[in-house]
Amino acid sequence: MSDSSHLDRMQRKKEVIDERIARASEERGVLILLKGNGKGKSSSAFGTLARSLGHGQKGAVIQFIKGRRETGEYLFFRDHPQLDWHIMGQGFTWETQDRQRDIEAAEAAWEIARGLLEDPAYNVIVLDEMSYMFKYDYLDTAPIVEALLRRPAHQNVIITGRTMALPLQEIADTISTVQDDRHAFRNGVKAQAGIEY
Amino acid sequence: MSDSSHLDRMQRKKEVIDERIARASEERGVLILLKGNGKGKSSSAFGTLARSLGHGQKGAVIQFIKGRRETGEYLFFRDHPQLDWHIMGQGFTWETQDRQRDIEAAEAAWEIARGLLEDPAYNVIVLDEMSYMFKYDYLDTAPIVEALLRRPAHQNVIITGRTMALPLQEIADTISTVQDDRHAFRNGVKAQAGIEY
Repeated sequence: MSDSSHLDRMQRKKEVIDERIARASEERGVLILLKGNGKGKSSSAFGTLARSLGHGQKGAVIQFIKGRRETGEYLFFRDHPQLDWHIMGQGFTWETQDRQRDIEAAEAAWEIARGLLEDPAYNVIVLDEMSYMFKYDYLDTAPIVEALLRRPAHQNVIITGRTMALPLQEIADTISTVQDDRHAFRNGVKAQAGIEY
Repeated sequence: MSDSSHLDRMQRKKEVIDERIARASEERGVLILLKGNGKGKSSSAFGTLARSLGHGQKGAVIQFIKGRRETGEYLFFRDHPQLDWHIMGQGFTWETQDRQRDIEAAEAAWEIARGLLEDPAYNVIVLDEMSYMFKYDYLDTAPIVEALLRRPAHQNVIITGRTMALPLQEIADTISTVQDDRHAFRNGVKAQAGIEY
């Protein structure tokens, strides 16, 4: 491509993008859903959290499934003064194999989430792997949708998990589906510290 | 679902998953590509970086497009002792509108990346928005594929960007495509600190 046709193309692109930016003028917190089978949903939520903390905002994470305290994300973030990190899960549901225990853990996690969603001090709340709570009927969506709709106007919420309940999709501002095009695990590479946990 | 059918289902699931884990026994660094139009690619890379740093690993980030130093991710990570952060871009290409300047910035960024890909001290390297360098023909893929293949065996590399050059896809271990199902921006919500930057 010549320098001048590049310039033409980029000038047109800049006009379109500048116009879109001018139209997007509303300032408010958003509900972001990160779903799908691909790698990168929870890590995306943690990256956004880092971004928020970088701006001096206050955040919270509730892990609905993970029960381990040796993950890199927890080791990295746990001492941050502007962040609460709640590990509420008892492990993956096929590890616990105990439906009643899972339901109790889910309800305890939701009680904490409910409090955060009423607290204007929190700018960003990550509900990590919450979607499994609906898939396995551990939690009802109705009270959760209600709490999300009533939350402080500036508060951002990120929910992750493979399959996302439809009532959450109906009220979300941003939805990304992470497609699993390829995964090293299927080619025999072991889950490793820093990448998978 | 009854507790006993839940237990059956979870026991079968555990068997399948345990077998898969046993088969995945290779330990080595992986090349991860995060592509697609949806929100969450760079933030996923930064989240994985946090995870790696949490395990005491050493990391580096090269931002090929972004030129600003006021992003939340930079403010958050810049002082970490185990991390180098290089902001090499001059802004988005439709902002600079100068093809020669963009090419020079791309080449300078690649020179730094090449050095990191030869250095076994680095466990994880994020090449943020590098894919645009190929889309606009600012860089050739051949020397980059070669450097990636020759890198230290334990080194993880994450490359982000909307469209990913095919030669990179051919050698990648993990590829996730982030689909844009919905974006708050299109519904008039302004890009905001902590979420978009």
